Amino acid sequence: MAEADLLDVPALDKAAGEEFLQEAFGVILEEAVRRGTDVAEKVCDWKEPEDLRHLLDLELRGHGEPQPQVLQRCRDIIRYSVKTCHPRFFNQLFSGLDYHALAGRMITETLNTSQYTYEIAPVFVLMEEVVLQKLRELVGWGSGDGIFCPGGSISNMYAMNVARYHRFPDCKRRGLWALPRLAVFTSKECHYSIQKGAAFLGIGTDNVYLVGADERGKMIPAELEKQISQAQVEGAVPFFVSVTCGTTVLGAFDPLVAVADVCERHGLWFHVDAAWGGSVLLSQKHRHLLAGIERANSVAWNPHKMLTTGLQCSAFLLRNTSGLLHRCHSAGATYLFQPDKFYNVAWDTGDKTVQCGRKVDCLKLWLLWKAVGTEGLEKRVDRAFACTRYLVEEIKKREGFQLVMEPEFINLCFWFVPPSLRGKQAQADYWERLGKVAPAIKERMMKAGSMLVGYQPHGSKANFFRQIVTSPLVTRQDLDFFLDEIERLGRDL
Amino acid sequence: MAEADLLDVPALDKAAGEEFLQEAFGVILEEAVRRGTDVAEKVCDWKEPEDLRHLLDLELRGHGEPQPQVLQRCRDIIRYSVKTCHPRFFNQLFSGLDYHALAGRMITETLNTSQYTYEIAPVFVLMEEVVLQKLRELVGWGSGDGIFCPGGSISNMYAMNVARYHRFPDCKRRGLWALPRLAVFTSKECHYSIQKGAAFLGIGTDNVYLVGADERGKMIPAELEKQISQAQVEGAVPFFVSVTCGTTVLGAFDPLVAVADVCERHGLWFHVDAAWGGSVLLSQKHRHLLAGIERANSVAWNPHKMLTTGLQCSAFLLRNTSGLLHRCHSAGATYLFQPDKFYNVAWDTGDKTVQCGRKVDCLKLWLLWKAVGTEGLEKRVDRAFACTRYLVEEIKKREGFQLVMEPEFINLCFWFVPPSLRGKQAQADYWERLGKVAPAIKERMMKAGSMLVGYQPHGSKANFFRQIVTSPLVTRQDLDFFLDEIERLGRDL
Ligand SMILES: Cc1ncc(COP(=O)(O)O)c(C=O)c1O
Ligand SMILES: Cc1ncc(COP(=O)(O)O)c(C=O)c1O
Repeated sequence: MAEADLLDVPALDKAAGEEFLQEAFGVILEEAVRRGTDVAEKVCDWKEPEDLRHLLDLELRGHGEPQPQVLQRCRDIIRYSVKTCHPRFFNQLFSGLDYHALAGRMITETLNTSQYTYEIAPVFVLMEEVVLQKLRELVGWGSGDGIFCPGGSISNMYAMNVARYHRFPDCKRRGLWALPRLAVFTSKECHYSIQKGAAFLGIGTDNVYLVGADERGKMIPAELEKQISQAQVEGAVPFFVSVTCGTTVLGAFDPLVAVADVCERHGLWFHVDAAWGGSVLLSQKHRHLLAGIERANSVAWNPHKMLTTGLQCSAFLLRNTSGLLHRCHSAGATYLFQPDKFYNVAWDTGDKTVQCGRKVDCLKLWLLWKAVGTEGLEKRVDRAFACTRYLVEEIKKREGFQLVMEPEFINLCFWFVPPSLRGKQAQADYWERLGKVAPAIKERMMKAGSMLVGYQPHGSKANFFRQIVTSPLVTRQDLDFFLDEIERLGRDL
Repeated sequence: MAEADLLDVPALDKAAGEEFLQEAFGVILEEAVRRGTDVAEKVCDWKEPEDLRHLLDLELRGHGEPQPQVLQRCRDIIRYSVKTCHPRFFNQLFSGLDYHALAGRMITETLNTSQYTYEIAPVFVLMEEVVLQKLRELVGWGSGDGIFCPGGSISNMYAMNVARYHRFPDCKRRGLWALPRLAVFTSKECHYSIQKGAAFLGIGTDNVYLVGADERGKMIPAELEKQISQAQVEGAVPFFVSVTCGTTVLGAFDPLVAVADVCERHGLWFHVDAAWGGSVLLSQKHRHLLAGIERANSVAWNPHKMLTTGLQCSAFLLRNTSGLLHRCHSAGATYLFQPDKFYNVAWDTGDKTVQCGRKVDCLKLWLLWKAVGTEGLEKRVDRAFACTRYLVEEIKKREGFQLVMEPEFINLCFWFVPPSLRGKQAQADYWERLGKVAPAIKERMMKAGSMLVGYQPHGSKANFFRQIVTSPLVTRQDLDFFLDEIERLGRDL
């Protein structure tokens, strides 16, 4: 065909495309949703990387494949993927599946727009504002600002950058060379994104002062005072304190009020990394864990973790109402943010970000919220606490299980001590041997595909399991299975 | 119910959930996919922000809503959203819908995993490597490294950070204070993400030296040399040059070979921002536009733009094979990247990023590629060029249309001169009046919902339209309609 004739007809067959989409949806519903949440099915069909690569025939070639083959590929991909929605997936801070949120995500993907201007995302620009406002209300702010970011790590970076700009607006134009050496403070239990952020933003990890935490993992305010003095002695200028609500491993909540006082005294930006624990604000019963959060200058909160909205859904919230976020990040590109539009361009909110194209991350949370209400979300949070509570009581009854500490959140940290090691705490190699138990059980578990749970060493503590339940599908039966299965897999170690 | 009894049953009704999902999918297929791509339907049902907010009832409340109401909300959201898949949406660098890619996105959303470890993303860790390798091959590299990022802006930041770390590894720990003042070079036609990135990374926008471009928007290598000397005179240390393959407005390709020579001479990192133009590498016919790209140290390439994979799909590619990306960004969190796993932890690639949770962005491209093959992708690219070619010829035939320049890519930049202004170029207020034409036509177009195309002023040039076709659904009829509609809407201005 001559080039111009090519243009007479579309280059895609719509009917065939819709048919494929419909079939693919059938596969998704059957294989990922239904079987993925079925406890009779595996959480994961483990294969070694080399085998899996071979099985999946990942190579990309010159010719396309016929529809049935592509559909088979969809099946295979689902089959060999880990089912994070499975009631026995306890491995990450996110897990579970919410049908409404998933529908929201599918709509988002189909509409495929970018959140920068009202012009091409009218619904989502308005929706993002409403959702952010609701989250801010839960924090305790009547006003403020914010934006959804691609993950909590980037939300934490936003906090650091906005704080830096707030104190030293010159930084945006002149860079860090125009500023004194800056110091960041966070507890040694903080998420690693604070370090990554400091490196990325040019501050450097050496300028992150790690504040001591108590045995429960909470930042010690007196230690923060000490580190601030230390930094000053070393010639750095303290500007930013990040506390954590719900630390990644232990689930600790830093003492917000005491740290807020320290920040106030020293004129420091007070950021709360509530990526994990923020959703607890929805619970009347448990929100006391975050008492004082309203004093923060900024908050990072990931609804994609505890609220099962699906990745990514991460809000960066700001108390400041002066347009700081926009001033800090804007570049005013005239091809996108034309000032001579006919509508109110205050709705073109995209210049608040460091991104250009930005996925719509608000709809999944909004739709879930509409479907279950604030009450429904509260019940989910309370139920997650109840699951953990139940496991704690069970663990206390079972021989060989030992809590690392009483959880105040839903991070259940414990060792499984196999019969061969019980009562041998006094032996010199006890901890070394115990540290090998969790990896061995994990290997067996993954190969069996029966469930998934994480482990890690922590400070001086040998490898222990960290179990998390956020999925509303998890029942007492799954929790009992969880403990039974660890016993079964670890009995002979 | 007592707290413990709550746990006896799941807190979600699976059957009702699946039914909802099925119905929601029906709505998506009918309203977003079928009607969204139907030229008899509007691209956008325009509402003023206040009206839309009211119509949608965005407020989030205590109580949940019954399923039929939630489903109606799905319909409304789709109805009032802009259809970026519509054959008459010419507004952004991304548009169109690919059924296979969309299926890939739906699978991604349902499986909801994070790309950090083989443990929870076995399929996608392997798949990402294969896709990145394929993209690198097209760049011309037999080996290398890379990662998918949440957008080209962040890919460009990665380039800047990796370049900085490569030259000054101290930066990661000690921050920019341990380094001389750094200078970045890019053309004045570059994407604004270079400026945003420089600000975010602590380098500062003043340290971005903007190199002059010729009348076609291409960086002038001699000007680059001058700016490098200028920066040195000003006491800064040049370290990073970013050229653009496919500038955002004019679609210009910087002269890669000449710039590569300059970079080599001065020992500078050579980054190619091919976010927009990278996909041209797939075309045997047009890939000469990127001749010399194989000499880059790093490349940013967004398949989500020209290849219709859907947002976000942005690859950061690196020529270096020494593990630089990992060294630059890793934090080695022991709760995630345990060294004592039973499988080869080289597959736990997540520590190469500055993120923690990271969406799976490779599947949509992989599935599309499997379905149509490299040949199919090539045809799409060639077809996009053919659409632009066709429009150029038409514009030359039509009175009142004036090209800003002959496009070498698919950015079609032109003015529409309404009858009242024709032949009046000599008048003092001609350009001022012409600059008001595009916004006026745009307003009418949006209110009519008939199509969508962007406009902007550029340098000294008054507002002109920038039209882009990437959707394979667009036909000659749509292209003719495009020009007719502009005439119709602008006739009386
Ligand atoms: C306390 C805390 N902050 C931040 C993050 C980072 O969030 P993301 O994975 O969305 O980047 C995490 C992730 O687990 C976290 O636990
Ligand atoms: C040349 C160029 N580079 C980078 C970007 C940024 O890409 P993203 O929107 O994915 O951040 C764009 C976006 O239009 C672009 O045109």
